[in-house]
Amino acid sequence: MAPGPGFSDEKNETLCESESTVYVHNPHLDGMKDDVLYHFNLGTSTHNLPAMFGDVKFVCVGGSPWRMKSFIEYIAGELSLEDPKAEYPNICAGTDRYAMYKIGPVLSVSHGMGIPSIAIMLHELIKLLYHARCTDVTIFRIGTSGGLGLEPGTVVVTKQSVDATFLPRLEQVILGNTVVRSTDLDQGLAEELLQCSKDLGQFETVIGNTMCTMDFYEGQARLDGAFCSYTEKDKQDYLTKAYESGVRNIEMESSVFAAMCKLSGLKAAVVCVTLLDRQKGDQLISSHEVLHSYQQRPQILVGHLIKKMLQTSASASASVLDKKTLLQAPTT
Amino acid sequence: MAPGPGFSDEKNETLCESESTVYVHNPHLDGMKDDVLYHFNLGTSTHNLPAMFGDVKFVCVGGSPWRMKSFIEYIAGELSLEDPKAEYPNICAGTDRYAMYKIGPVLSVSHGMGIPSIAIMLHELIKLLYHARCTDVTIFRIGTSGGLGLEPGTVVVTKQSVDATFLPRLEQVILGNTVVRSTDLDQGLAEELLQCSKDLGQFETVIGNTMCTMDFYEGQARLDGAFCSYTEKDKQDYLTKAYESGVRNIEMESSVFAAMCKLSGLKAAVVCVTLLDRQKGDQLISSHEVLHSYQQRPQILVGHLIKKMLQTSASASASVLDKKTLLQAPTT
Repeated sequence: MAPGPGFSDEKNETLCESESTVYVHNPHLDGMKDDVLYHFNLGTSTHNLPAMFGDVKFVCVGGSPWRMKSFIEYIAGELSLEDPKAEYPNICAGTDRYAMYKIGPVLSVSHGMGIPSIAIMLHELIKLLYHARCTDVTIFRIGTSGGLGLEPGTVVVTKQSVDATFLPRLEQVILGNTVVRSTDLDQGLAEELLQCSKDLGQFETVIGNTMCTMDFYEGQARLDGAFCSYTEKDKQDYLTKAYESGVRNIEMESSVFAAMCKLSGLKAAVVCVTLLDRQKGDQLISSHEVLHSYQQRPQILVGHLIKKMLQTSASASASVLDKKTLLQAPTT
Repeated sequence: MAPGPGFSDEKNETLCESESTVYVHNPHLDGMKDDVLYHFNLGTSTHNLPAMFGDVKFVCVGGSPWRMKSFIEYIAGELSLEDPKAEYPNICAGTDRYAMYKIGPVLSVSHGMGIPSIAIMLHELIKLLYHARCTDVTIFRIGTSGGLGLEPGTVVVTKQSVDATFLPRLEQVILGNTVVRSTDLDQGLAEELLQCSKDLGQFETVIGNTMCTMDFYEGQARLDGAFCSYTEKDKQDYLTKAYESGVRNIEMESSVFAAMCKLSGLKAAVVCVTLLDRQKGDQLISSHEVLHSYQQRPQILVGHLIKKMLQTSASASASVLDKKTLLQAPTT
């Protein structure tokens, strides 16, 4: 269900021949008079979504609303779009389910914790980008995670998101039946992020598999939940198997993020910092300052790539314009 | 792992012979020097949890932080504990993961959306109640839901929480293996809530099964998500089967809430208002005012029961004291 004729931005069409749209896969949507994006407190009849969001090229999502506000302030500075007087209002201020901020072509949205919470947000975000007729959108999840065999503070760019049995899939129940979806991510984008980390030289970044679980305590083999029926050895055996299968970090949203972005044609990457090495402990006992500085790393990495991509895009546009000027130049 | 000797409150022991503690089932916890409740920004070495929370008898949880703040303001008024100058500070102000408020014996905590989000909160809440040596705690989830065959605004008190195949169970993955847990709730408490609704006479309340899903759109047979591969008839057939199995509403947290409360010895009830009849639609198109008034119903019902239970407990205490006075009266 690509947008019909007349939806595309003519200027972009001229500059980019292979522009890709954001897809929904729902034949019922076109028959709806209005679409209420309930958990954003936005809607097609109450808001001019193309005017509000039509220029979005980058979306950055993360669990914490505070972190997503901090990201928009950071990226505004990086892209020299900051206004000292700007307050960066929360676009979803009418609800406390998610927070959303925008500056120029960058949208920053919080998604809460766990697969169901990010899935609700992604359904409504994908519809928002579709209604707003956005094209060529790249999306990043920036988050925190537990690491395996890595120094705390290392950033992991996800190669594949795997489930608790280390398989790259998302099982989803639809009308009571289990459907299996692919959790592939864009490998080129992951490589570009790794290169950015090398350019920056500020912290360690690796590409590895990310295990996505349904629970933070028992689901991640922690020994410090309210319930625990296994031993320290059981935990270490499980985490060793995970490591041997290629898992380098563990979090709670990457699989559905990968699956839904793939279905909707969004170029996607997952960038999470590891707050601790799970083979050495379970509790987050580092100081607030240390944890805070770790949490800034994914945003620094993604911010750097966005800046780089915008610069490349600007010079490509300039070159196309130069070519057009040349072609249109009167022959003498 | 009940608290050891010396943990229990002597006054309560005298008045209530069958006092029940909050259980954790984790042999590792006692060996830990500190316990950091990371997502609450609380901990055993940084906070005096018995002093802060030892008197808690009722916990009320719900998805939205705003609603849980509104609940504490409401219950303060109901119990005549309100202070016109009180600000009801967020006890978890150091984090944006959850919000927590307390007045007298009532604790109000937000849990976000979906099973993983509420499970993290419940692990830390159960440990908090355990560390604080709380006894005889009753817990309520107040929430919103989609209804089946009910007028919007009807409140459903959950009899059984069932999965997307209508079975009363929670499948949880621990160390890569699937464990099945019971989702039984306290039937006596559900009946008491139904009686409260009759006493109040303000809105319709029913007891019925609640289907707990992992997704709001495809997982609940909605036709308005970013993806939908089934027809209106498929949706209606599925919802009809759900209704015929006893399901009266659909939400996203009740199964793990029921399972974890049962494991920890917390007397628990799920009280959700239905915002729409899912057999008649998918979108929440009622006005903000109407939806807001519906959302107050679970808190009115639970508030009424808490008031009633506190009055009963006060008169029982008075009667025990009378009896003691009588027994201790000098015989002449």
